[in-house]
Amino acid sequence: MNSEIFSLSERLVSSSYVRQGLQARRAHEQLIRLLLQQGKCPEEEWSESTVELFLNELAVMDSNNFLGNCGVGEREGRVASGLVARRHYRLIHGIGRSGDIAAVQPKAAGSSLLNKITNSVVLDVLRFTGVRSVSSCFVVPMATGMSLTLCFLTLRHRRPGARFILWPRIDQKSCFKSMLTAGFEPVVIENVLEGDELRTNLEEVERKIEELGAENFLCVHSTTSCFAPRVPDRLEELAVLCAKHDIPHIVNNAYGMQSSKCMHLIQQGARVGRIDAFVQSLDKNFMVPVGGAIIAGFDENFIKEISKMYPGRASASPSLDVLITLLTLGANGYKKLLAERKELSALAERHGERLLHTPHNPISLAMSLNRLQTHSTAAVTQLGSMLFTRQVSGARVVPLGVEQTVSGHTFRGFMSHACYFLGHIFNFKRSRCFTLYVFTQSSVSEDRVSLTNHLL
Amino acid sequence: MNSEIFSLSERLVSSSYVRQGLQARRAHEQLIRLLLQQGKCPEEEWSESTVELFLNELAVMDSNNFLGNCGVGEREGRVASGLVARRHYRLIHGIGRSGDIAAVQPKAAGSSLLNKITNSVVLDVLRFTGVRSVSSCFVVPMATGMSLTLCFLTLRHRRPGARFILWPRIDQKSCFKSMLTAGFEPVVIENVLEGDELRTNLEEVERKIEELGAENFLCVHSTTSCFAPRVPDRLEELAVLCAKHDIPHIVNNAYGMQSSKCMHLIQQGARVGRIDAFVQSLDKNFMVPVGGAIIAGFDENFIKEISKMYPGRASASPSLDVLITLLTLGANGYKKLLAERKELSALAERHGERLLHTPHNPISLAMSLNRLQTHSTAAVTQLGSMLFTRQVSGARVVPLGVEQTVSGHTFRGFMSHACYFLGHIFNFKRSRCFTLYVFTQSSVSEDRVSLTNHLL
Amino acid sequence: MNSEIFSLSERLVSSSYVRQGLQARRAHEQLIRLLLQQGKCPEEEWSESTVELFLNELAVMDSNNFLGNCGVGEREGRVASGLVARRHYRLIHGIGRSGDIAAVQPKAAGSSLLNKITNSVVLDVLRFTGVRSVSSCFVVPMATGMSLTLCFLTLRHRRPGARFILWPRIDQKSCFKSMLTAGFEPVVIENVLEGDELRTNLEEVERKIEELGAENFLCVHSTTSCFAPRVPDRLEELAVLCAKHDIPHIVNNAYGMQSSKCMHLIQQGARVGRIDAFVQSLDKNFMVPVGGAIIAGFDENFIKEISKMYPGRASASPSLDVLITLLTLGANGYKKLLAERKELSALAERHGERLLHTPHNPISLAMSLNRLQTHSTAAVTQLGSMLFTRQVSGARVVPLGVEQTVSGHTFRGFMSHACYFLGHIFNFKRSRCFTLYVFTQSSVSEDRVSLTNHLL
Amino acid sequence: MNSEIFSLSERLVSSSYVRQGLQARRAHEQLIRLLLQQGKCPEEEWSESTVELFLNELAVMDSNNFLGNCGVGEREGRVASGLVARRHYRLIHGIGRSGDIAAVQPKAAGSSLLNKITNSVVLDVLRFTGVRSVSSCFVVPMATGMSLTLCFLTLRHRRPGARFILWPRIDQKSCFKSMLTAGFEPVVIENVLEGDELRTNLEEVERKIEELGAENFLCVHSTTSCFAPRVPDRLEELAVLCAKHDIPHIVNNAYGMQSSKCMHLIQQGARVGRIDAFVQSLDKNFMVPVGGAIIAGFDENFIKEISKMYPGRASASPSLDVLITLLTLGANGYKKLLAERKELSALAERHGERLLHTPHNPISLAMSLNRLQTHSTAAVTQLGSMLFTRQVSGARVVPLGVEQTVSGHTFRGFMSHACYFLGHIFNFKRSRCFTLYVFTQSSVSEDRVSLTNHLL
Repeated sequence: MNSEIFSLSERLVSSSYVRQGLQARRAHEQLIRLLLQQGKCPEEEWSESTVELFLNELAVMDSNNFLGNCGVGEREGRVASGLVARRHYRLIHGIGRSGDIAAVQPKAAGSSLLNKITNSVVLDVLRFTGVRSVSSCFVVPMATGMSLTLCFLTLRHRRPGARFILWPRIDQKSCFKSMLTAGFEPVVIENVLEGDELRTNLEEVERKIEELGAENFLCVHSTTSCFAPRVPDRLEELAVLCAKHDIPHIVNNAYGMQSSKCMHLIQQGARVGRIDAFVQSLDKNFMVPVGGAIIAGFDENFIKEISKMYPGRASASPSLDVLITLLTLGANGYKKLLAERKELSALAERHGERLLHTPHNPISLAMSLNRLQTHSTAAVTQLGSMLFTRQVSGARVVPLGVEQTVSGHTFRGFMSHACYFLGHIFNFKRSRCFTLYVFTQSSVSEDRVSLTNHLL
Repeated sequence: MNSEIFSLSERLVSSSYVRQGLQARRAHEQLIRLLLQQGKCPEEEWSESTVELFLNELAVMDSNNFLGNCGVGEREGRVASGLVARRHYRLIHGIGRSGDIAAVQPKAAGSSLLNKITNSVVLDVLRFTGVRSVSSCFVVPMATGMSLTLCFLTLRHRRPGARFILWPRIDQKSCFKSMLTAGFEPVVIENVLEGDELRTNLEEVERKIEELGAENFLCVHSTTSCFAPRVPDRLEELAVLCAKHDIPHIVNNAYGMQSSKCMHLIQQGARVGRIDAFVQSLDKNFMVPVGGAIIAGFDENFIKEISKMYPGRASASPSLDVLITLLTLGANGYKKLLAERKELSALAERHGERLLHTPHNPISLAMSLNRLQTHSTAAVTQLGSMLFTRQVSGARVVPLGVEQTVSGHTFRGFMSHACYFLGHIFNFKRSRCFTLYVFTQSSVSEDRVSLTNHLL
Repeated sequence: MNSEIFSLSERLVSSSYVRQGLQARRAHEQLIRLLLQQGKCPEEEWSESTVELFLNELAVMDSNNFLGNCGVGEREGRVASGLVARRHYRLIHGIGRSGDIAAVQPKAAGSSLLNKITNSVVLDVLRFTGVRSVSSCFVVPMATGMSLTLCFLTLRHRRPGARFILWPRIDQKSCFKSMLTAGFEPVVIENVLEGDELRTNLEEVERKIEELGAENFLCVHSTTSCFAPRVPDRLEELAVLCAKHDIPHIVNNAYGMQSSKCMHLIQQGARVGRIDAFVQSLDKNFMVPVGGAIIAGFDENFIKEISKMYPGRASASPSLDVLITLLTLGANGYKKLLAERKELSALAERHGERLLHTPHNPISLAMSLNRLQTHSTAAVTQLGSMLFTRQVSGARVVPLGVEQTVSGHTFRGFMSHACYFLGHIFNFKRSRCFTLYVFTQSSVSEDRVSLTNHLL
Repeated sequence: MNSEIFSLSERLVSSSYVRQGLQARRAHEQLIRLLLQQGKCPEEEWSESTVELFLNELAVMDSNNFLGNCGVGEREGRVASGLVARRHYRLIHGIGRSGDIAAVQPKAAGSSLLNKITNSVVLDVLRFTGVRSVSSCFVVPMATGMSLTLCFLTLRHRRPGARFILWPRIDQKSCFKSMLTAGFEPVVIENVLEGDELRTNLEEVERKIEELGAENFLCVHSTTSCFAPRVPDRLEELAVLCAKHDIPHIVNNAYGMQSSKCMHLIQQGARVGRIDAFVQSLDKNFMVPVGGAIIAGFDENFIKEISKMYPGRASASPSLDVLITLLTLGANGYKKLLAERKELSALAERHGERLLHTPHNPISLAMSLNRLQTHSTAAVTQLGSMLFTRQVSGARVVPLGVEQTVSGHTFRGFMSHACYFLGHIFNFKRSRCFTLYVFTQSSVSEDRVSLTNHLL
């Protein structure tokens, strides 16, 4: 409300109370002002009322909410259902323009601000979680895989003759498909076993580059976040190789923002070698609904090129979700969530099993299931179904030697990330609280792993 | 958002778009400014977004939403549940103070404004619906009956010796109970049949006043809105009598605001005689949830006296509902609703029945059920249950000669408003669309009454 | 969704997933079933999704939400504004009937269930917070003061000749007004100073009963929750006196549910003597918006009599708020809130003041302001305004010897609860976290009192 | 609520009321049952309460809402912000799996159902709006342009040697970019002027196919919806050509669902020739927020192939919006919106201008601006800014001879869809109500075009 309205209020309610109210309003405005001025994630969390005040203010600036608006075009932000309008805070115009998903829309100053601020706040988070020298990023309402595809499609215009993408194996379907969808041929580099860990085979990478010719590679497509026993790729060494051979380097950092180790690898890779873009999932890193990703990089022009590659305006919904979430958490709240990860005490031994030693994997753990090995594969499947019916989700029982064909390519030992891994494993994420149902002989005993359940 | 924030926005989004957004915000503010300045129901409806913007602004002014608030008292507007906070737009402090339900609260400038504005807007509606000279009113979060009780309790302080309330019979339980609850003895005046209509027996009123002594009457308690065949009381004549005998006069106008005839009667009564207060239901007149009433009158001091009689702070929920409703309808929308009442074409005759001729009752109609009379009372009951199972609600089948005892007083011919009425009747509201299930012989035929269904 | 719908779902989505979904639905239903079966506050908190599921189910049962509904009456739960409908979860019919605020409504099975369940859950909370033998209660959408008035009006029908209410002084306006509004004459009993505490003067109580005659007293109106230095009334002794003289006894327990001491006093009073009803505020005890109260007692018939005294249907809004709150807290959550009250360490001494020793007051504390006494009263006022501008609300600075006239009655030493109290005091609630601004000489130094801030 | 809960309710509320409530619940369930059984858009609109009931039921089936859920994976539908959870009705898991955007998710039976039902309902709408023989479709949370890109990327796997896309010119940036992003070279076919209309140059199309070789074309990319003076492509003839030369055919039907003519063209094209897929925008056709599209076709396998091409899970937000919208409109409501388009009366003549005669363009109109031609181009720009400041959006003033370069390709006469068009034009959509600001000499006169404003 403007000052005139406050003056009128003083005729109805004693002016000292109104002035206190005005002062209170300014406290909210001060937060909004700081956000716009600094373009950073606020240190402290915002109350839901400040967040909603801010979103309502943005919506008021979009033309579909103009009181006297008379729209005759096909892009007017018309909404047939009140339920739909409300759930989007009446921000209907989406983000971007035909020419650029990061561009400002004439009819939608509010939605455009939302888009700009979200990208700015997310950039700040990328920085304080470890990639200090990142220079540009944008939120795109597509899955991580499709976002990788968009990066590859952008690179095609720079390297029209390239056919291959060099890819250290990671057993996750959409990573693999992201390359096929873009129309390229993945050159799969099997990982090597070092102790319990599966790590990047750098010799094989270099050999392949020389065999097929650097100029025929669109890029190297590496991965940070993955399930044990695989560990993050050797990003520094890969980045140095890319620089040396003048090959672009795209990093799949899907759920790596949660791990300072993954973020550090990217920062280091970019410092000593070449990383063109790195892509992260919104839902996994910010606890928002599925469907968005962040594309980030160190060269503003290249990131701009990617954002211009998206043909059309796009959904603002993922941007809205991530902005609301970061404002209600604040930088401190977000950091606190990250800090809550703690070490798992080894209880595997009590059951005659062992945790695989994968110190380079900051995200997930794997446990042997040797006792099951003496039983049939059916026993392994049974363990999986026990977890399912007990509503334990996210932990995977990986039987030995599974074969899986993805878009024509056959992966041996799928989900154990290697064709030569030697046992059943039980793979789960670090530092979540859960009841571990351990399978012994033909019965099931429960052994509660007492960890934080803050993130659940 | 203030001008500084808009300036900052111009660094992110082109300034011409931001300026258009600022202009759009001013259009909303202009509506709020006018509301506060004039204190009237806006002519045109507000959009939901303007209404919510306004409510959010009010909430920001309440101390429970102050960002740095540190409350140590017992009245701090604390809310344990987010669901509850949100559904009240974070307006938690209620209305009024210990001393006066219409008073301003120190900790709640926003809630206080809500209270003041609602009362002011409702006063405007009372005026343009017909009681042009009403001088003061307030919304109270109590049923009509309890609100009448509060009026009677206030009058007691002015007339400590009074014992009786003179009351032309109206067959609605809470009207009767409102007097008993206040501790007074109703003197029931049976109505007289004029044609098909039951009207106020003025001779009997005057006779009773003389018989029991004017000074022993707390007040006359008359009624406008009622079910046919009863019609509104002869307000003008009653008001003149009250003036003549110096007896206060309280009018139960429960759902009379919908009828220009009822409102006109009150206006006329106050002009030619004496009306101290008139009470209307919120839900019936404004289509809001049950639980509030408006107490209004022509002497500001007396209305103030009533509002000071309520001990404690009260729920703001009914005020909030009525304000939202009037802003989203606008004066024109509200008037349009009233105008949609149309005459019912007589279809009763086709079924060998007739509509009772009750021209003075602008609200409800009654139809004879003579054919049923030749059947048993069971047949009448069956008609009622037919309506129930066909989800027709609000129409009543009133069997002949029902007796009902309310708080010890026995009413003969209850719901037909008279002890000497001569047939079953079928009572329903004017000008609603419904399928009239007419009972003929032992079967039921449907005959659709084609009326407006705008209010349903 | 019923089983047929689940079967159909299995044609679209694999049946094992659908069955898991069905099982999940049953987990919510199981909670609802237990609630209805036991009528108790659930031990554990419900998720917001279970609460909303339940409220939506209730709404579906109300006639205004029937899909084929055809309402022609004046009580159809029509709502003009979608904003209003949604914020009440489409529960529009309010609670009660003309005859009884606790009665079931024919058109509103859902709202009626809401009403019954809320009263039942609240009764359970009254029991586990200390009044184990309470037999009946109901939520009423009126302030505590107005609810006390309703109790007095009910008693009038039992004791038509009574004129007086015996009332140990408590300096809270609406307590006093509740008696005047009901039309009775308070007989004020000044408290006696025992140490630092102001306690009930039992001798004076008995003397007054004998002086004016027991039969002329409507009731004794005692108080539990109050500001220091006053302490809760001697309920046991008063209850014994009431039983002896056959005088009803109404207890104002406004914010006493938070204190096991207050609840224990009521339980004991009823055990050894007579307590007819005790009244508590909803907002203060359940952290809901202002505007509701609970009227409870040990004789179901008397409580029923009070509920029948309210003329008309009433707002369901306070019932809805308290039900949502108790379900989202659970009994354990509610008890935990109560347990968080801890002792205040005496920091007064550091500033040359002392905490008054009021061990019988479990709710609030008072501190001397002797140093201010040497200054002018203006200094005291200044301290108050300092608290106000620093957004510390709820703590009161009470200057020495203030006189206040409430409805014609003059109270000397208002807010210090006595006419003969000897200093300025600083009164605040126990066990809230706040920064205590202590006034020394002409400057203000801050001294943070480190207490829990869980309730803020 | 299940039957057991209803039985328990009968102990609290009279069983006849509870049974009516149960019956009312069944009425909602009946609607849901029909929806699942038939998979069609319901004839009649659903109330908001039925829609929300349904969405809540779906949410309950997703694992993130399981009451005892213990998620340890990285895909658990965790949400940090309550605001975010609520606005998505707690449906967090998105749609699809890594392998297929249309696939069922193990952890999210509710979200999977949402996805399946939405696609099924949208298919029904495609059929009743004119493409009766469409066999399969899916909603994808990407812009129309990006969705076209996905179609092209899918075709690449079928025609690995193809380099060109044959594209009759349409002046809309993202259409053009959709081909470049996919990595193909557009072969632009300039349209021919027939009367006032710009139509497909079929001879040139055939010539180009023969010149460059059919096997080198990925597909023909045609367009239905466009701005006058361009009209929809000659789909039938193009489809016949595609069949003859064995070239795939992708139709950009961005906002063509609103026009029975566009839909008829597609139906006919598929009947007589070849159409592989046709793509439409969600926001323009269903009045939902920006960001989704429908990819549809006549061969289920090919559509499945496209849906499998999207790497990863995707946002459910656009699917949710379109489902809510179609349920709250019903098929009848949707058809009614379409029917409200009426002819514009020629008012251009009164101002010395003429409407271009473009009978094949069912969507937009163009008016000459000859009088402006005698003025400078600055005058044309001024007209545009006048519309902007008067908040008329969607109408475009197209100056003569504008050149625009999109991704390196230069279009002469951009927005008039031809390099040889001969005058300024004023382009606007058919059948929307607006005040036409007509520019005469140097002043502006208003002339209200009286058309329906239902869609605004």
